[in-house]
Amino acid sequence: MFTQTLTPTFSDTDALGHINNTRIPVWFELGRNDVCRLFTPDLDPRHWVLILARMEIEYRAELFFNAPIEMRTGISRIGTSSFTVEQTLHQHGRLGAEGRTVMIHFDHAAKQARPIPDAIREALEGHRIAAAEAAT
Amino acid sequence: MFTQTLTPTFSDTDALGHINNTRIPVWFELGRNDVCRLFTPDLDPRHWVLILARMEIEYRAELFFNAPIEMRTGISRIGTSSFTVEQTLHQHGRLGAEGRTVMIHFDHAAKQARPIPDAIREALEGHRIAAAEAAT
Amino acid sequence: MFTQTLTPTFSDTDALGHINNTRIPVWFELGRNDVCRLFTPDLDPRHWVLILARMEIEYRAELFFNAPIEMRTGISRIGTSSFTVEQTLHQHGRLGAEGRTVMIHFDHAAKQARPIPDAIREALEGHRIAAAEAAT
Amino acid sequence: MFTQTLTPTFSDTDALGHINNTRIPVWFELGRNDVCRLFTPDLDPRHWVLILARMEIEYRAELFFNAPIEMRTGISRIGTSSFTVEQTLHQHGRLGAEGRTVMIHFDHAAKQARPIPDAIREALEGHRIAAAEAAT
Repeated sequence: MFTQTLTPTFSDTDALGHINNTRIPVWFELGRNDVCRLFTPDLDPRHWVLILARMEIEYRAELFFNAPIEMRTGISRIGTSSFTVEQTLHQHGRLGAEGRTVMIHFDHAAKQARPIPDAIREALEGHRIAAAEAAT
Repeated sequence: MFTQTLTPTFSDTDALGHINNTRIPVWFELGRNDVCRLFTPDLDPRHWVLILARMEIEYRAELFFNAPIEMRTGISRIGTSSFTVEQTLHQHGRLGAEGRTVMIHFDHAAKQARPIPDAIREALEGHRIAAAEAAT
Repeated sequence: MFTQTLTPTFSDTDALGHINNTRIPVWFELGRNDVCRLFTPDLDPRHWVLILARMEIEYRAELFFNAPIEMRTGISRIGTSSFTVEQTLHQHGRLGAEGRTVMIHFDHAAKQARPIPDAIREALEGHRIAAAEAAT
Repeated sequence: MFTQTLTPTFSDTDALGHINNTRIPVWFELGRNDVCRLFTPDLDPRHWVLILARMEIEYRAELFFNAPIEMRTGISRIGTSSFTVEQTLHQHGRLGAEGRTVMIHFDHAAKQARPIPDAIREALEGHRIAAAEAAT
């Protein structure tokens, strides 16, 4: 499991005084940097081999501007060419949001899915979590 | 069903040359303005009575910067205090993304869900679509 | 002068109840699409020949979520390889923000500025405004 | 002078393969959190006493996704009720962008500027830099 501490920006808030729902996908994308590095170690976008197929987010409690947010990122499913990233955000120890994204190992030139290579599959296994574990 | 035509901004793209996944939730939020107006006709955030509980998006095909995008927004489920908004994005007639959000009629002062008033329920019914209909 | 009507998104607001300052550069970038089309008629990012050198924005009055915003975009200076885009935002007839960006005609492969071709220079001239005119 | 290390998100890039110009104002807003804390120690938006009057950014060199970015934030001018925040971004030791914002000590209820209290003025002095110093 990867962990990261986020500092909200004022522009992450909205007129209801809390973090806007559209910011969570951006933070989750930041959290997935650690996963993308397993596929593209130098994180150079010209060598990118992943594409996002699906995103789900449950908003559990309001998140606020003025306190750090703990993000956890793990892998809950590994298929032939796709896998599922499971992520959570906690603030003051309380679950604010949890979500998952289905990523596909993808050849951007050929516009085709490709099986996940064994070495990367093993690396992903090292970060495996159950959905429930991330949300606790 | 509500429809809107979107013009992408250069900042909506990413280094893969297409629209970044995190922009779709922002466009869908824009599309829900029409739904929010049924609850808060003047759209004044101080009178806001909705909260977002859940979001799901399926990314079906790449969307690009240099052509308009058609957004459709309808209601696919109406419960006691919650309802589901179903939305799609098409570019050049091709489905690029579809998604749904669960919204809750919510008292922000009391921090509690409230039944959807009958008049608003009727207005929502007027925009009812099947999930399949939006994605066609 | 180009004009466009913007519909704010809820995520454009911040916890002070108004439009967040960081959204104005995004709207101005959208407004410059019309200028970029003079250089790259199909707006294909792979044929892009512009780069942004400088941005200035004056925040004149609060802008709010629940009313349309009128954006005006014109050209206030045309140099050898650079030019200045002058832009304003009005809501309810009141000036909310004005700004300018210095754009450079740029060869992204050679990483070098290039003189603005005569035909484009003439097209830019057709949209020339004085800074004061945009802000009125 | 305050310093912060930023990790770019994929959504910070654009189709030209570098960091999009509209992300710099967001990062600079994050960097100003440290300055805002001098005015509102708990960073609660309900006690906010600042407003942004003006922003200027010079884009000096491309910034990229796959390396950390060093942000420096200092104070270059302190007036009666306003002050200027000077900021820079460096990547691989190279200046990518520099900018400044004019902030006003502001009473959001009365919608009026207020003199900067002496204690805060002293705290601001402790972070004073010359514009040239930040950009070095």
